[in-house]
Amino acid sequence: MLEHSGLLTDLYELTMAAGYLQTRFDARATFELFVRHLPAKRNYLVAAGLEQALDFLEHVHFTTDDISYLRRHPVFCNIRDEFFDYLAKFRFTGDVWATPEGSLVFPGEPMLRVVAPIIEGQIMETYLLATLSYQTMIASKAARVVTAAHGRQILEFGARRAHGSEASLLAARAAAIGGCEGTSNVLAGHQFGMKTYGTQAHSWVMAHENETEAFRHFLDAFPTHSVLLLDTYDVHRALKTIIKMGRKPAGVRLDSGDLAKDSRWVRRELDRAGWTDVKIFASGDLDEYRITKLLAQDAAIDAFGVGTSLATPGDAPHLNLIYKLVEVERAGEIREAAKLSAAKVTYPGRKQVFRYSNSKGQYLSDKIALEGEPANGGEPMLIEVMRAGQRVAPAESISVLRGRCITSLAQLPRPFLQINRTAVYPVRYSQRLKTMLEKVRRRVRRAAKK
Amino acid sequence: MLEHSGLLTDLYELTMAAGYLQTRFDARATFELFVRHLPAKRNYLVAAGLEQALDFLEHVHFTTDDISYLRRHPVFCNIRDEFFDYLAKFRFTGDVWATPEGSLVFPGEPMLRVVAPIIEGQIMETYLLATLSYQTMIASKAARVVTAAHGRQILEFGARRAHGSEASLLAARAAAIGGCEGTSNVLAGHQFGMKTYGTQAHSWVMAHENETEAFRHFLDAFPTHSVLLLDTYDVHRALKTIIKMGRKPAGVRLDSGDLAKDSRWVRRELDRAGWTDVKIFASGDLDEYRITKLLAQDAAIDAFGVGTSLATPGDAPHLNLIYKLVEVERAGEIREAAKLSAAKVTYPGRKQVFRYSNSKGQYLSDKIALEGEPANGGEPMLIEVMRAGQRVAPAESISVLRGRCITSLAQLPRPFLQINRTAVYPVRYSQRLKTMLEKVRRRVRRAAKK
Repeated sequence: MLEHSGLLTDLYELTMAAGYLQTRFDARATFELFVRHLPAKRNYLVAAGLEQALDFLEHVHFTTDDISYLRRHPVFCNIRDEFFDYLAKFRFTGDVWATPEGSLVFPGEPMLRVVAPIIEGQIMETYLLATLSYQTMIASKAARVVTAAHGRQILEFGARRAHGSEASLLAARAAAIGGCEGTSNVLAGHQFGMKTYGTQAHSWVMAHENETEAFRHFLDAFPTHSVLLLDTYDVHRALKTIIKMGRKPAGVRLDSGDLAKDSRWVRRELDRAGWTDVKIFASGDLDEYRITKLLAQDAAIDAFGVGTSLATPGDAPHLNLIYKLVEVERAGEIREAAKLSAAKVTYPGRKQVFRYSNSKGQYLSDKIALEGEPANGGEPMLIEVMRAGQRVAPAESISVLRGRCITSLAQLPRPFLQINRTAVYPVRYSQRLKTMLEKVRRRVRRAAKK
Repeated sequence: MLEHSGLLTDLYELTMAAGYLQTRFDARATFELFVRHLPAKRNYLVAAGLEQALDFLEHVHFTTDDISYLRRHPVFCNIRDEFFDYLAKFRFTGDVWATPEGSLVFPGEPMLRVVAPIIEGQIMETYLLATLSYQTMIASKAARVVTAAHGRQILEFGARRAHGSEASLLAARAAAIGGCEGTSNVLAGHQFGMKTYGTQAHSWVMAHENETEAFRHFLDAFPTHSVLLLDTYDVHRALKTIIKMGRKPAGVRLDSGDLAKDSRWVRRELDRAGWTDVKIFASGDLDEYRITKLLAQDAAIDAFGVGTSLATPGDAPHLNLIYKLVEVERAGEIREAAKLSAAKVTYPGRKQVFRYSNSKGQYLSDKIALEGEPANGGEPMLIEVMRAGQRVAPAESISVLRGRCITSLAQLPRPFLQINRTAVYPVRYSQRLKTMLEKVRRRVRRAAKK
C-alpha cells in the first residue's frame, strides 16, 4: 500500500540536498522529531507510526523516471550531474532511535532521532513528520475515547471520513494502538491482523419492502452474526418488529436520536423478551465527550462505533510535530545546532528522555537530558530501532503495541487521564541541556559579528 | 499510488453484499452522494475528487488473497460459495453521473449518482465517500484562502501535515483545483503535472557556520532560484547579511514573528538596495483568516505558503458527505427510497440539480429536481461520466479544473465569497420531489401496519 518514492517529499528537501552536494558540504547530522505543545484538551500523546516510518526508511529510493522528472525541473538547471547520480544510488544509511509505539510522549520529548549524512536526514523529513504525526494524533485520540468508555468496546468506523484510503488504514492501525478493539476497515483487518466488525446500513432496510423482510433476510444470511439497525424509520417500531419475529439477533444498533433514552428502552424490551445477551451498539458522531455524557445518563450501550473523530478529530485536527537539526558533525568537529527565533527556540544536542516512577510504578515526571547523561533511576524512553539503515528488531504486532499503551496509561496518574480537564505532566530539561543552549546562543551572536 | 482493492471498504458493505446474494435479492439501485449541511463558516463547496473516484470504479477488484481472507472471516461462516465466486469476477458495471470537479455544490445537491446492481453500489460506498469528501473539503478551503489573498500567489505546503502520503497528494491536487498555483509536494507535481515550489529550511542555515556561509552556499547552487529564509536567528540581521553580500536572491521568506511588520521592513530594505524585484514569501500557520488580517495590515507579501490548513483544515476538519439509497428497481418495479428518521430525512428518487443565473451570468439560485423535470432555463449540474463501468470522457487536466473553479467563483455573487460572514445560497426542492417524499412516507407507514 505505502509506496517508497523518494519524491514523497517537499521540494526544498531536494533543493537543499542538491545544494549540500554542489557546495561539498559533507556532514553527518542529527535531527530530532517532537511537539512543542500539546493540542488543546490533551494531557499526553501516544506514540504511533514508527513501523511505517521504518518501512519507508528501509525502502525509499528514486526511480529512473523520478530522476528524469527532477532533471527537467527548472530549479535544478544549475545543478551538476553528480546530484542525479547520487539520487540513482540513494539509500537511507542512518541510525534511528525512537520511542516505541504505544508509549506516552510529552511536549519537547524527541519521539524519533535520526543520525545520518545530512542529505539523507533532510530528504526524510517530510515523510517522517506526516506518518508519525497522523498516527500519533489518532492513537492519542483513541486512548481518550477508550478511557471515556470505561471498559465498553470501542470500534473504529472512520474509513469513510479518512483522508483517502491510505489514511483510513493508518487510522485503523493507530486507533487499535490507542486501545480500540477493532475496525470496520476490511483492508486494515487484513493488512494488520486486526479484528473487523460490521452491522448493516440504512440502505439495507430501505431497499426492502419493509423492515420485516429486511431483518428476516439478514438473519437468513447471518443467523449468528446479525446486528440489526433500528433507526431507519422508527426505533420502537423496528425493535417490536424484531421481537415479534421471534428470531434473536446478535445485536441491534442505534445510529441517531436520543441514544441514552432509546438504548435504555431497547435494553428493557430486549430483557423482557428474554434476550438479555443481545448487545446494543451505538454510532453517529461519537467521541470521548459524547460517550462520557451518555454513560452519565445510564445509556445501556455495550459497544460504540466511533468514526469521524478517530479518522480526523475535530477537537485537535492536527499535531504540530517538528523535525529539527540539533547537531552537525563536519570535518571531525561536532557542533550543536539550535533555532533561536523568539517564539520558536529549540534545544541543541542529541537527547534521551528519562521517565521516573514511584515504587508502585506510577509515573512521576520526565527529564529531557543529553545522550549519555546518567539516568538516576529513570527509564530511558528512546531505544535504538535502526542501525546503518537496517532495523535492529522485527516489527511488533498491533496487540503488543496496544498492550504497551494500556500498560502505560495504567501507570499515568489519574489527573492526566481526565477527559475534560487539562493537567500538565512535569517534564524538565537537564542543566547540561540548558547550558548547551546558552553556549549555542553565544556562538551564533559571535558568528554574526564577524 | 492509489490501489484498487475491493477490501478498501467497511465490513458491513461486504456483509450486505453477501446478504443480497444469499437471499436472492436481485435489484438495481440508485445511490446519491451529498452533504446535508455545510461545515461552519462555509458558503459553498468546490467539488473535487471525481477523477480518483472514477479511477477506482474502473479498476476495483478482489484478488485471490483478498477472497481467501474473507472466507476465513467468522462473519461469513454461513455464506455460500456463490458469494466468493461472485467477488472473484467482481467488476463495477454501473452508470455514474456527477458534478464536474471545480464546480460549486450546495447542501442537499447530489455531487454523484450511482446506478448499479445494488451489491456493486453498496460496496463502493466507503471509497467514494472518503475520496470525494476529502478533496472537496480541501478544494473548498483552498478557494477561500485564494479569495482572501486577492491575487497574491498561494502555494500548498501541507505535505508534512497531511494524513499520510496519499492524503498529501490528494491535498495538493484538490488545493490546485481550488485555485492554488502550486505545491511543495514533489510527487504531486510529477503525478498531476503541477508546478512545485520550495525554498530552504531553518536546518540549512543552522547546519552552516553562520548565515553568510549558509546564504552564499545556497546562492552558489541556485544562482537564479534562491529563496532565502530570514527568521532562523534574527530577521533584521539575516537580511542585512544578504544585502551586504551583494548577491541578489530570487526571494526571501519569513516563517515566524510579526509577518506584517517584518515584511514591510524587509520590502523597504530590499527596495533601498535597488532589489525591487526580489519577492517576499511568507509561511507559518497561515489560512484565509490570517491572510485577510495581514493584508489589512499592509503586509508586503507576494506569495503565501499555506500548509496545515490546506492538508487538514482546523476550522472545518471534516465534511459530512453521505451516500444514500434513493431508488430500487426490483422485479421490474421501481420503488423510491428515503430515510425518514426524525433528524435525518433524505429525499427519494433520481435527481438533477438546475442552476439559474441572471443575464450577466451571476448565479441566482439552484433547484433540486427529479431527473427528467424541465430545466426552465437552469443549467443541469450533473453530467454523465461513466456508462456500464466505462468512462465516457477522458480525465481533465488540473488546469482545466482550476479554471472551472475560478470561473464558477466569479459567477457567485459577492456576499457568498466573504470569508468571515455566512450567507445562505438559495437552494429549493421541486414540488414533485416533495410530493414523492410524502408518497414514500405513506408507503412506509402502510407497510409497517401489515
